[in-house]
Amino acid sequence: MYRVTVTPSVNETYADDLMGKTAIVIDVLRATSSIITALHHGCSAVIPVETVYQAKDVRDEGVLLGGERHGKKIPGFDFGNSPLEYRTPELRGKTLVITTTNGTRAIHKSSKASHVIAAAMLNARAAARQALSWNKDVVIVCAGTRDKFSLEDGLCAGFIIREIEELCETPPELDDLGLAMRFAYERAKHRLEEVILSSRNGRRLAKIGLIEDVMYCCQTNIVDTVPMFIDGVMTSGVHR
Amino acid sequence: MYRVTVTPSVNETYADDLMGKTAIVIDVLRATSSIITALHHGCSAVIPVETVYQAKDVRDEGVLLGGERHGKKIPGFDFGNSPLEYRTPELRGKTLVITTTNGTRAIHKSSKASHVIAAAMLNARAAARQALSWNKDVVIVCAGTRDKFSLEDGLCAGFIIREIEELCETPPELDDLGLAMRFAYERAKHRLEEVILSSRNGRRLAKIGLIEDVMYCCQTNIVDTVPMFIDGVMTSGVHR
Repeated sequence: MYRVTVTPSVNETYADDLMGKTAIVIDVLRATSSIITALHHGCSAVIPVETVYQAKDVRDEGVLLGGERHGKKIPGFDFGNSPLEYRTPELRGKTLVITTTNGTRAIHKSSKASHVIAAAMLNARAAARQALSWNKDVVIVCAGTRDKFSLEDGLCAGFIIREIEELCETPPELDDLGLAMRFAYERAKHRLEEVILSSRNGRRLAKIGLIEDVMYCCQTNIVDTVPMFIDGVMTSGVHR
Repeated sequence: MYRVTVTPSVNETYADDLMGKTAIVIDVLRATSSIITALHHGCSAVIPVETVYQAKDVRDEGVLLGGERHGKKIPGFDFGNSPLEYRTPELRGKTLVITTTNGTRAIHKSSKASHVIAAAMLNARAAARQALSWNKDVVIVCAGTRDKFSLEDGLCAGFIIREIEELCETPPELDDLGLAMRFAYERAKHRLEEVILSSRNGRRLAKIGLIEDVMYCCQTNIVDTVPMFIDGVMTSGVHR
């Protein structure tokens, strides 16, 4: 039987809990939603880095820079952290270097796992299928916001757990946070947009005029693209 | 408008977040359920201490000792940590010194708050009413288990939030974990016993023959006793 556990934030993610397992990293608003969207629209590779300095350091011809600090685009970068920006032919065949406040940190912190993939509402079912294909226990890493739990990441964890349960003959064993997130998702699933707009990040993004980003990120299972993180680079697996 | 926030475990409870607020400490299985039960049955005061050594240190005539380590009664103690044991006339008018793995630690860690009360499923409504009477923001401190989130504490936090919402004309502002716990509670409330028996602590207690403890602790709003922690001692407030 699989075991599926959930960590509430980057802060509460420990290397020891990841060893030998599959990590699914979630930052619904907005890092993983953006990475999924970029790869889905033909970007060939996404390199998540932790600092603006590192991002500028790897800049060379043909590499584009994306990311945010405090929700805003970084001066001199090609893109911000809005997934809507990444639906552009400009990215086709290109490498994107991205840095965000919480999401890229969560991806790097998860690298002690045997396999690391990125998920969001957009690709939950495909991510669940990809994770199960490796036949290992799963740790769902909620990026959270500045070391605190974020509602949208927790609900997405609950959503992925439901998808895993539908794909497994024997239901996985869940830890207590996994059980709680599954219950929360089941209660909120028919009004995800409204609920996520009531979360801290939802309210913050709506306030700075980015309500369309929130609406986009609330869409469920619209793509089959699953970003896989190998040797510091995310590339697309399409898992149908 | 009140603000109500939830901390997932003792580990994630910081003094800075408690200053000037009311703390509601929850350890459903079983410390706060036991303390509530003891005070409800006539025990005059409960002194929560963090170590077995401290408990033995304050032992003198008329003081009874209770507590557990790894779910079991401590050698030489008068009581374990089963709330059912505390429904005895033996405790009437007596002082009980209690030490448990997570709950008593959570109570002490919350002492930076302006007011500290103990809650469980048993007294959720009375605890909500007592907390609101002080007219301050509320932090619900889930004790958790060995620094991890526990489902039963999270569901109780969601339950208390629902009770607070019913008592307030203006609904309180909730943090993301509070929102998630309220959703989870709403989904699970019609089968709390079954759900809590599926949690880590529920399974563990059932395995060592303490299923009756779990069933007892799943009862909602059966008492009006609200333990208040002042100067190291918990005494009973009855808040109707």
